[in-house]
Amino acid sequence: MKKGILIVISGFSGAGKGTVVNRLINEYDDYALSVSMTTRSPRPGEVDGKSYFFVSREEFIKRIEEKEFLEYAVYCDNFYGTPLSYVEEQMEAGKNVILEIEVQGALQIKEKHPDALLLFVTPPSIQILKDRLYSRQTESVDVIHKRLAQAEVESRHMHLYDYVIVNDNLDECVKNTNEIIKAAHSSTVRSVEFIETIKEELKLFTEGE
Amino acid sequence: MKKGILIVISGFSGAGKGTVVNRLINEYDDYALSVSMTTRSPRPGEVDGKSYFFVSREEFIKRIEEKEFLEYAVYCDNFYGTPLSYVEEQMEAGKNVILEIEVQGALQIKEKHPDALLLFVTPPSIQILKDRLYSRQTESVDVIHKRLAQAEVESRHMHLYDYVIVNDNLDECVKNTNEIIKAAHSSTVRSVEFIETIKEELKLFTEGE
Repeated sequence: MKKGILIVISGFSGAGKGTVVNRLINEYDDYALSVSMTTRSPRPGEVDGKSYFFVSREEFIKRIEEKEFLEYAVYCDNFYGTPLSYVEEQMEAGKNVILEIEVQGALQIKEKHPDALLLFVTPPSIQILKDRLYSRQTESVDVIHKRLAQAEVESRHMHLYDYVIVNDNLDECVKNTNEIIKAAHSSTVRSVEFIETIKEELKLFTEGE
Repeated sequence: MKKGILIVISGFSGAGKGTVVNRLINEYDDYALSVSMTTRSPRPGEVDGKSYFFVSREEFIKRIEEKEFLEYAVYCDNFYGTPLSYVEEQMEAGKNVILEIEVQGALQIKEKHPDALLLFVTPPSIQILKDRLYSRQTESVDVIHKRLAQAEVESRHMHLYDYVIVNDNLDECVKNTNEIIKAAHSSTVRSVEFIETIKEELKLFTEGE
């Protein structure tokens, strides 16, 4: 079985990346969602190992020291991180592990794991992004302005991603994203072992002549 | 309309790359085969502009001086080359232009055109390659040995390609190749204009605040 790929998905707020991720997980067999680890207490309804892995502060710090996180951060005095072991287990089992994460975290992961596939989800235009944000009617104008200002900052790093996923029609977007991920399995950087085997086989043959 | 991509396909003799290329051209609308230019005389049945563009030696040399070739070479005292203008016209018309070419030529093109997508077609194993070559029964053992020795040399450059296309089942191989090429359109290196537009739109918005 071919090893899965670590997929890092970012995108503008309102681009629909959460929906794309959920549909990939639900509609295809070969995806797994990364489960974060946190030191905060479980809220009602949250399940350990599903919503989060809940651990003590001591346990979390021990894991940081043992370099067991892909990335981690502190919010409101609690630790949040992506456990490496869970991600690796899933990848070994052939699953593409999806990590939905903001731009700074994504670029940190790319630095440590150049094999990760970085996808940036965007609407076809900023006018459409604005229309979507306003039509939700759940957020104040102030909050929408903050989201757009945040998008401006994020857009400066878009070119550092591997692929730009345009979410125009959702069905097509999900299909395209799956195809991009499928294609990535054939990239030479992810076929190192196969290439080595072919080279060895050919070398044995020509040496045998 | 999105611009097409320049696709360079190489692969071991017997890997079936010619068949894959023909099926892409016949089964999908968005491919065009690059037509070479040559100074040799047309053979019976060859059509100018289809088989080759047939030109005089003077014309060919003038085009070399005007840098109008993607790559060119001399065989048996005749010039053969890939005219840049034809490739660019097709790409502007949205066609992915396929160039079936050996490894050295492919790597030369990648150097001058980093946007080109380099695909390497290989059977799943060298044993299968041998079986295929022998089962053709049209070539002597000597010729087959030469092809395998040639494959050994080519295999040293496989890792410089963008994708490794394993031709196990032909139908799947054609489908995968098409998906890889489709996915390549969304890569950030091929979305530079779109990214710039999004950045500009967001900048205008935040400056307007």
